[in-house]
Amino acid sequence: MKCLSLSFLTNFLIMNYLFAQYQPVIVIHGGAGTIRKADMPPEKEKEVHEALAKALRIGYQTLENGGTSLDAVEQTIIFLENHPLFNAGVGSVLNNKAQPELDASIMNGATLEAGAVAGVSRIKQPISAAKLVMQKSPHVFMIGKGAEQFAKEQGLEMVKPNYFITPEQINQLKKLQKRLKDQKKNQKASLSPNQEIGKFGTVGCVALDKAGNLAAGTSTGGMINKRYGRVGDAPIIGAGTYADNNSCAVSATGHGEYFIRANVAFRIAALKTMQNLSLQQAAQQALDLVQKLGGSGGVIALDREGNIAMPFNTDGMYRGYIDKNKRMETLLYK
Amino acid sequence: MKCLSLSFLTNFLIMNYLFAQYQPVIVIHGGAGTIRKADMPPEKEKEVHEALAKALRIGYQTLENGGTSLDAVEQTIIFLENHPLFNAGVGSVLNNKAQPELDASIMNGATLEAGAVAGVSRIKQPISAAKLVMQKSPHVFMIGKGAEQFAKEQGLEMVKPNYFITPEQINQLKKLQKRLKDQKKNQKASLSPNQEIGKFGTVGCVALDKAGNLAAGTSTGGMINKRYGRVGDAPIIGAGTYADNNSCAVSATGHGEYFIRANVAFRIAALKTMQNLSLQQAAQQALDLVQKLGGSGGVIALDREGNIAMPFNTDGMYRGYIDKNKRMETLLYK
Repeated sequence: MKCLSLSFLTNFLIMNYLFAQYQPVIVIHGGAGTIRKADMPPEKEKEVHEALAKALRIGYQTLENGGTSLDAVEQTIIFLENHPLFNAGVGSVLNNKAQPELDASIMNGATLEAGAVAGVSRIKQPISAAKLVMQKSPHVFMIGKGAEQFAKEQGLEMVKPNYFITPEQINQLKKLQKRLKDQKKNQKASLSPNQEIGKFGTVGCVALDKAGNLAAGTSTGGMINKRYGRVGDAPIIGAGTYADNNSCAVSATGHGEYFIRANVAFRIAALKTMQNLSLQQAAQQALDLVQKLGGSGGVIALDREGNIAMPFNTDGMYRGYIDKNKRMETLLYK
Repeated sequence: MKCLSLSFLTNFLIMNYLFAQYQPVIVIHGGAGTIRKADMPPEKEKEVHEALAKALRIGYQTLENGGTSLDAVEQTIIFLENHPLFNAGVGSVLNNKAQPELDASIMNGATLEAGAVAGVSRIKQPISAAKLVMQKSPHVFMIGKGAEQFAKEQGLEMVKPNYFITPEQINQLKKLQKRLKDQKKNQKASLSPNQEIGKFGTVGCVALDKAGNLAAGTSTGGMINKRYGRVGDAPIIGAGTYADNNSCAVSATGHGEYFIRANVAFRIAALKTMQNLSLQQAAQQALDLVQKLGGSGGVIALDREGNIAMPFNTDGMYRGYIDKNKRMETLLYK
């Protein structure tokens, strides 16, 4: 009798463990902006879909193997940072001095631990630096040379700033600066060109692992022709990135200044938990505030139930997911 | 008849204007930490009270004269930055390389506009640089040399980093570094010394002007012995500073890493508007999360009705206010 009940108990625990496991989910974005089917060469469209699918598979594989959402987010973003198609890592847009200045952040929804770096140009994978700030320093946010020194001490691969610069980005900057000069526009003009050029934002990833833990990460080259020293929302915990198991994981992309002012990532989490909005409603409402303030962009959001929201108020947003039913989709336009 | 109704209308508008005016309110903090009456020399206690009172009067005068809450916040913080007693501007704590690295931010509750600088050591008044980033650049957040170049272009007074360093701060850093060496502590040890040394945090100000507009600002030298490049919550919109006329204005002080992770300033605003908590409840609840995560510090918060909250979970917090009834109080301990 004792044996029988023990066996029941064991079975119960095993079954419980098996069914209590969460189905992994991963969602990514690769920037929002003037992304229109009419302007998109078919081969580039194909390339974007393939890159997004590959990024998703990398992260999903980590989750399937029982890895943490934090590791999945990092691995996925490393791939996107290394891909010249996206405004993060290699292929980052350049500032007004034609330099790359990269920002990244990551957050663990299980512990509310977070790490971020800003204004770095010598760390090959800014997202990994952000993760190490979180895990190996007493700090959350490190900037500039101090962040680079820390990353180096931690054994991360260091590169020269030129490593990040692609011919395409030099051309885009030159074109933009020439146009601005021609138009004799004032300083405020540097606000809008991203949309015209269509490279607006960041890359980001949110993930749910089998243990039910959420994580979020964001990495970016920022805004083309930004002033030297400018930092957007990507490394700001609560603006570009937030994750809390009790609410959701969020990564934003867009005109960072507005996302900071509207505290977008945490606002979505707050609307969900404090006002009981659905994830979709919460994400949309935060984005509506950005729009009201004059900004544009998009977000990806994911909760523990596997709900996904990916609203944006631009023409398009590179995005994709593998949901709890293992369905993969990659999307570019409205 | 027409004249009569016009006169009625004029009177109505004038009366309405007079009575619709808000009573100015100003609240400040000068850092939280191990501030105990038992350890406080009477002459220092007097000096702190006097400095807080003077800071309050400066800001209140601006408000009384019909100035904006934004200007009141800036003027008050300039005084605190220039006072060596506080960890902001002159008298800032030093990083692990014995350098000052200053951070500041400001936010306009009427428009949700915001400005911030981090990692600067050549701008005499970091709070003014934050305000100029908000008003004169298309950006919200600028760091390091880029922020300094911008401030210089805007005509702000520039200084050498030595300007901010006081003998007291050199002594405190040396004492701390010697103790850490003696104790052969690991890197994580640099987390706790602020509290022991009692110089923990920032200066901050929230204000309500006659037009009913809220503003918030925060300025700091950061955390003593912080790693070169570390940035805390003070320049992070949503963490150390937030202002929204529809909710409240908040400035935080304390162990910045926890305030970033808990998104304290915006969390208070969110709890107030989304969960209809009182200002006091909202501020306390956000601070409780900081404590739950392992952090300590305090906040000041103010809403349009003139309600004031000043909770902290340390031994003391330098703080004070002039309320809507023109009552002034300055406080140091629990």
